[in-house]
Amino acid sequence: MSKTASGNPVLVEVTRGPIVESRHAGAIAISDADGHLLLALGDVDRPVYPRSAVKALQAIPLIESGAVDAFTLGEHELAVACASHSGDPVHLEAVRSLLTKVGLDESYLACGAHWPVSEGATRTLVRAGRRPRAIHNNCSGKHAGMLAAAVQLGLDPRGYERPDHPLQVMIARIISETCGVALDRARMGVDGCSVPTWALPLSALARGFARLGSGEGLTPQWANAARRLVSACFASPVLVAGEGRFDTMVMAALAPAVFVKGGAEGVHCAALPELGLGIALKIDDGAKRATERALSEVLAALLPRARQVLADQLDGEVLNWRGFSVGHIAPSAGLQHAVAELEELPRVDGEKLAQ
Amino acid sequence: MSKTASGNPVLVEVTRGPIVESRHAGAIAISDADGHLLLALGDVDRPVYPRSAVKALQAIPLIESGAVDAFTLGEHELAVACASHSGDPVHLEAVRSLLTKVGLDESYLACGAHWPVSEGATRTLVRAGRRPRAIHNNCSGKHAGMLAAAVQLGLDPRGYERPDHPLQVMIARIISETCGVALDRARMGVDGCSVPTWALPLSALARGFARLGSGEGLTPQWANAARRLVSACFASPVLVAGEGRFDTMVMAALAPAVFVKGGAEGVHCAALPELGLGIALKIDDGAKRATERALSEVLAALLPRARQVLADQLDGEVLNWRGFSVGHIAPSAGLQHAVAELEELPRVDGEKLAQ
Repeated sequence: MSKTASGNPVLVEVTRGPIVESRHAGAIAISDADGHLLLALGDVDRPVYPRSAVKALQAIPLIESGAVDAFTLGEHELAVACASHSGDPVHLEAVRSLLTKVGLDESYLACGAHWPVSEGATRTLVRAGRRPRAIHNNCSGKHAGMLAAAVQLGLDPRGYERPDHPLQVMIARIISETCGVALDRARMGVDGCSVPTWALPLSALARGFARLGSGEGLTPQWANAARRLVSACFASPVLVAGEGRFDTMVMAALAPAVFVKGGAEGVHCAALPELGLGIALKIDDGAKRATERALSEVLAALLPRARQVLADQLDGEVLNWRGFSVGHIAPSAGLQHAVAELEELPRVDGEKLAQ
Repeated sequence: MSKTASGNPVLVEVTRGPIVESRHAGAIAISDADGHLLLALGDVDRPVYPRSAVKALQAIPLIESGAVDAFTLGEHELAVACASHSGDPVHLEAVRSLLTKVGLDESYLACGAHWPVSEGATRTLVRAGRRPRAIHNNCSGKHAGMLAAAVQLGLDPRGYERPDHPLQVMIARIISETCGVALDRARMGVDGCSVPTWALPLSALARGFARLGSGEGLTPQWANAARRLVSACFASPVLVAGEGRFDTMVMAALAPAVFVKGGAEGVHCAALPELGLGIALKIDDGAKRATERALSEVLAALLPRARQVLADQLDGEVLNWRGFSVGHIAPSAGLQHAVAELEELPRVDGEKLAQ
């Protein structure tokens, strides 16, 4: 397979008419909880920022601290703490409820403001002549969850987003130990929402997701926290992203077989608890259209019943402004080959991979 | 320099904190009107769809047919015929005026509808409880110009967007002869606005832009048409794109030294009439952030006085939702090297390249 500067192959091609118009290179790792790689396509050892893909790991202190029980948090509040939400009323309600139970208000959110991901929510604000606030930020649930953990732990809720705040130190340790890799301050960036994002290899990220999904390899406390958070996301997938969005659609149809979470700049991760596997992929250029397309191929190969819910993604048709078909977002020959190898793995009951 | 699957080097890197988060590969050609290449970075022979970058070439029949004089079209109407406009009132007014002079209405526009590029224009529609129409499509000026040419030529204005319509056959011949390359139906796609887009090499596209800017190598009729269209864009750069957008900003500050036009999927072209050069570039993955960043480097190298207006692009700072600096969009080492070689070319009067 042809390679890019980073050693990564083209994974997704965008055709228009008879030729390929655009190309997306990247890397994919599939791992079990022990770190055995079922697939390593491209450079899976180079550290990448996971961005929002690890929100469920960042929410573990919310459970481990006891905040979830002390503040009687429900599944909606846990799900939105793991979310990159659309800013629709259902999301704002869950974030507000979380903050209220903790005794804080929106002014504590350090994520900054952006227009809601949801077009409908944006239009509602525009019609009312209002501007977006921090609560509309897709990360506001994560931030509310971090505030809850900080308060429960007796930490200062101001400055909770800074890398040296004890809560962020705790989160870094959780990510490091769950993924089985040291984190290096020389590979730490600041996320769009102002919390640290620690670069780590896709191979480690995939292992972390295998553990997040199955609990294998985690302490009993973290395994319990992971189970509660993932269950909450499975119970309310719309809270984890929003109407019409990939993660919501996949979990609504496939839970508890697939936990899935995207991040910015082309990162996407998934856990397949039944198979004991985790998936982590990064498109080099950060394009979401390629990220979701590549992940759809991998999910369909590992879980044949995913094919139906992913039918539109797997078709990948590109329509123009009059609704005419003008091209396709398609897997490259290299990705097709890798996926064909996954499909040939021995299975039990037509679904599970044989151990 | 490292290469991608397509043989193209990484041109632009997006850093976050201490490491590179995302990478954009691509190719750049700089040519004179005779087809001599001053720069060929990456694969400049592979055909790419120029998309909206060639709107000025697609507008040549509007002049050549005599429509511009028969319908007493002004500079605003010519500029918007070459535009990927923002859908602000100034743009809609120019398109409506063009259609009215031709005796047609919006129902003739075959471009399909999308929300205006301009956030302000979108909000105005939302507040009024209205949906976008074809006139809001960024290509509506091009379509109105095509309709004007079709009517003046006595052609059926219905179906003007189809590849076999005589107007599109004429446009294909103009693109082919201006760029000095045969067009192949086996490399024709349908654009987002439903007109044909013909793939051609970046080297040919760069030559076509050198000719568009200087008139060299064109028939007197086409050279006159190019001059009138480019002059109209220089006179009203805001009509060619819109407030705050790259092409508008560059031409407002640098005309008549630079004519510039972007297209979808990472294509961007420029003409530098004073230097007798044309530039064509394509980012493999289609990302606009990389396209504008790479073109800024090239323009600043060829035209030192461009550095001031491009200062923000050349800095490339990435801010997060609270306005903190979290990274940079930066030229790769390979692009820096190529640009340094352009800067070392001998100059006359501190600006012009020596012949």
